[in-house]
Amino acid sequence: MIKILVAGFKGKMGATATKMVLNHDQFELVGVLDPFEEKGNLNELIEYPTINVPIFKTKEAVLSVQPDVWIDFTIPAVAYENTRFAIEHNISPVVGTTGLTEEQLAELTDRSKELQVGGLIAPNFAVGAVLMMQFAQKAAEYFPDVEIIELHHDNKRDAPSGTAIKTAEMMSEVRAKKKQGHPEEEELIEGARGADFDGMKIHSVRLPGLIAHQQVQFGGIGEGLTIRHDSYDRSSFMTGVALGCEKVVHLEKLVYGLENLL
Amino acid sequence: MIKILVAGFKGKMGATATKMVLNHDQFELVGVLDPFEEKGNLNELIEYPTINVPIFKTKEAVLSVQPDVWIDFTIPAVAYENTRFAIEHNISPVVGTTGLTEEQLAELTDRSKELQVGGLIAPNFAVGAVLMMQFAQKAAEYFPDVEIIELHHDNKRDAPSGTAIKTAEMMSEVRAKKKQGHPEEEELIEGARGADFDGMKIHSVRLPGLIAHQQVQFGGIGEGLTIRHDSYDRSSFMTGVALGCEKVVHLEKLVYGLENLL
Amino acid sequence: MIKILVAGFKGKMGATATKMVLNHDQFELVGVLDPFEEKGNLNELIEYPTINVPIFKTKEAVLSVQPDVWIDFTIPAVAYENTRFAIEHNISPVVGTTGLTEEQLAELTDRSKELQVGGLIAPNFAVGAVLMMQFAQKAAEYFPDVEIIELHHDNKRDAPSGTAIKTAEMMSEVRAKKKQGHPEEEELIEGARGADFDGMKIHSVRLPGLIAHQQVQFGGIGEGLTIRHDSYDRSSFMTGVALGCEKVVHLEKLVYGLENLL
Amino acid sequence: MIKILVAGFKGKMGATATKMVLNHDQFELVGVLDPFEEKGNLNELIEYPTINVPIFKTKEAVLSVQPDVWIDFTIPAVAYENTRFAIEHNISPVVGTTGLTEEQLAELTDRSKELQVGGLIAPNFAVGAVLMMQFAQKAAEYFPDVEIIELHHDNKRDAPSGTAIKTAEMMSEVRAKKKQGHPEEEELIEGARGADFDGMKIHSVRLPGLIAHQQVQFGGIGEGLTIRHDSYDRSSFMTGVALGCEKVVHLEKLVYGLENLL
Repeated sequence: MIKILVAGFKGKMGATATKMVLNHDQFELVGVLDPFEEKGNLNELIEYPTINVPIFKTKEAVLSVQPDVWIDFTIPAVAYENTRFAIEHNISPVVGTTGLTEEQLAELTDRSKELQVGGLIAPNFAVGAVLMMQFAQKAAEYFPDVEIIELHHDNKRDAPSGTAIKTAEMMSEVRAKKKQGHPEEEELIEGARGADFDGMKIHSVRLPGLIAHQQVQFGGIGEGLTIRHDSYDRSSFMTGVALGCEKVVHLEKLVYGLENLL
Repeated sequence: MIKILVAGFKGKMGATATKMVLNHDQFELVGVLDPFEEKGNLNELIEYPTINVPIFKTKEAVLSVQPDVWIDFTIPAVAYENTRFAIEHNISPVVGTTGLTEEQLAELTDRSKELQVGGLIAPNFAVGAVLMMQFAQKAAEYFPDVEIIELHHDNKRDAPSGTAIKTAEMMSEVRAKKKQGHPEEEELIEGARGADFDGMKIHSVRLPGLIAHQQVQFGGIGEGLTIRHDSYDRSSFMTGVALGCEKVVHLEKLVYGLENLL
Repeated sequence: MIKILVAGFKGKMGATATKMVLNHDQFELVGVLDPFEEKGNLNELIEYPTINVPIFKTKEAVLSVQPDVWIDFTIPAVAYENTRFAIEHNISPVVGTTGLTEEQLAELTDRSKELQVGGLIAPNFAVGAVLMMQFAQKAAEYFPDVEIIELHHDNKRDAPSGTAIKTAEMMSEVRAKKKQGHPEEEELIEGARGADFDGMKIHSVRLPGLIAHQQVQFGGIGEGLTIRHDSYDRSSFMTGVALGCEKVVHLEKLVYGLENLL
Repeated sequence: MIKILVAGFKGKMGATATKMVLNHDQFELVGVLDPFEEKGNLNELIEYPTINVPIFKTKEAVLSVQPDVWIDFTIPAVAYENTRFAIEHNISPVVGTTGLTEEQLAELTDRSKELQVGGLIAPNFAVGAVLMMQFAQKAAEYFPDVEIIELHHDNKRDAPSGTAIKTAEMMSEVRAKKKQGHPEEEELIEGARGADFDGMKIHSVRLPGLIAHQQVQFGGIGEGLTIRHDSYDRSSFMTGVALGCEKVVHLEKLVYGLENLL
């Protein structure tokens, strides 16, 4: 059993992480942290009537329960302090808070190496999305003909999505240069062939009902290869958080990005 | 059994039609027509060693075998003469030759009504494609949010495809006016949101390996409806030709467009 | 503007319907009904602080606001009484409550014809799902080769889904009899070819993350036609409820099943 | 430029390979081999009127043109002799002939190591299919919930396909043991849940029009990941043959299976 603390347990992500830890066979929730919560135990809160787990108000108090892993979904300033504190007390951090600076990341990584404490900081915990990008990059080595179709709800303003652009960047690193489509192709209506990213085409679909989906479609002589990720719900991040908790206890330094654990 | 003649039996489409008739339970091939073929019977040709069917050189000669249906895959000038001849001799034409003029079509239709002879002239015999367009039009009455993704091999020059534009036109007739996507949407890379057709978006994918595919994707609150047609091979037209042969013998006039038989 | 009353406004479906009516351009919410609610106006409830709409405790009291349409998401016994009351007072019912008996339905329909009052009772208000079934039935006339793949979350116990079976039944009514697949096909592992329904195959996929999806896939010579419905959320029913409200005011009798309005 | 010989250039695969070499920028066709062909140069054959390339009748004669790579699509007995001959004369073999015995493979591999000659023997040259299997195996480490849907034309007799079973085997090696679906799931019609392979489900669709397609679908909390391969045409193998030719000249031993080059 891995003993886990959750900092920021009252936010949307922190609350989901708390529930994930409670429901996981291999994990034991040994405490939660929130300086502004007046109650002292989860069982005093309406959401967790039967869960006997202490609520800590200071990071020092956490040490009494000796966690192995420190899950952090707080705010950047707090996350930095918390992560350094965890590393220095031999607790492996799993941090989903975004917004740490490059200097902070470098310093935390150095400190973790000195102390040989594993940890993970990740802006994106969606295992499926990370695998999609890795597979797309691998396939782009062999199939330079590739187009991305990304599909989102119509409340999204930007097109293409950040994930589509990141995927295209990753493929661009390994793909043989090529401009997609017929050399003399002609758009009868402007925009039909989509956005051009280094010769690859990206198409952005926006429809009500959709959530967040991406399809990377490769074509070769007589064949096609398609990799698709569907994200239906924010809860999808929890597979990655759980994976992080399992892996960090075996690492000897802090790593940045879930892709480095897959 | 429906007795069938095939005119233009040596062209690509005509040859495919000839084989379809030979393989169909309900059809009997009673003759083929080609003014330039020297042989007098299919069994003298290397492709049809065991098929005892007369090859006619003139349309008048065809009357000896009294066909019910006249399949025509010739050239426009010939097709017009053939179709009129068929109607006037009570043979139902099924014509896939494209390029007849509006005047010719009007005249042939009038003549067919006078003589109460059924017939079909169709520029497109792909039943699946026609159904896709009909279904898309129907769904557009209820779901104004719709985007088209059409995917073709990368030898295709034009984008969007003719089928995509025709589908959009058909939806436009019944769809409530609406501009797809977020009112303030922004393209980070030009073209990401595709071609705009009357507020609907069309995306054209071009990849080697692909043949001819189209997906019409509707979105509503909490749901999606997708209609997709995949064309793998020219032989797909034969389902429509066979359907035409079955239906024309029950009609009392010439109709234009397979959609009017579905 | 269509004036609408919602009965059962505190249940999950009723609350969603209430919000839909409030957000719809063409609809005016003139009242809600719940015999057990003590408050007299929606603006006294925490969910609707600014909505000034009366809460009625009896169906008779509703008449004071003269609704055109009576949306009903109550329980069967109540729904029957409510529907009869609405018809007899020239209010068009739109009823989503399931569980009315055949006798009740017959009696209500007769009464509606006598009084020439339009109405709708529907067990399923998902427009997309109904269209999928209608399109599948239409396509089955031309393509006897069809398989259904239905995909649901893995909390679902039954396979195939009710929708898959209903779709197969509808196709069976019009499809030429045919046993799918190679006449001498062999299952190397039992069940590979799925469930057999009148010669059509149905495949049930169960995975976490999925919600409720169905794909009806047709094959013809050289082509394929696929119709897919994705249901992401219960809110999808509201498109159908809204459509029902718009249509019933033009009807002269009660109809059963949303498909009869499409 | 890599200098290439094609043995078995008159068979279906060999002819396709010959054309691929002729069309490839980096390859030079220096000869073809067939003991039964009477003509001495490709330009004497009707298919290659302008291609001046010698046709050899014996493997010894081939040495005169000093090929770098020996593509072999012959029969097992010949392929074994050819491959040994190539290795012993410092020509890298790329062998698609199936049916070599394990002993032959072991002997050829040993010989290649001694002489430090690279080579490839592969039963399957479809790069896309091999990547699909590799990606599926990788994803199965993180997502134990997975089902395979494989779709083929209805002339196929066996279900599931060999590729589906091989994919399931590869996933089984790394996947946490789990029985797919609800623990108390019930089939209302037998076979609905597909074939069971070590707790994973496989569904086999058979429809006219389809060629060879496979979809490996993973589900996690709130997300899905899908990997799909579409094979439209035998020509898809040529991407792998070309890749093999490029890679073998840098190897120092014979490898078995295209997956070991990706």
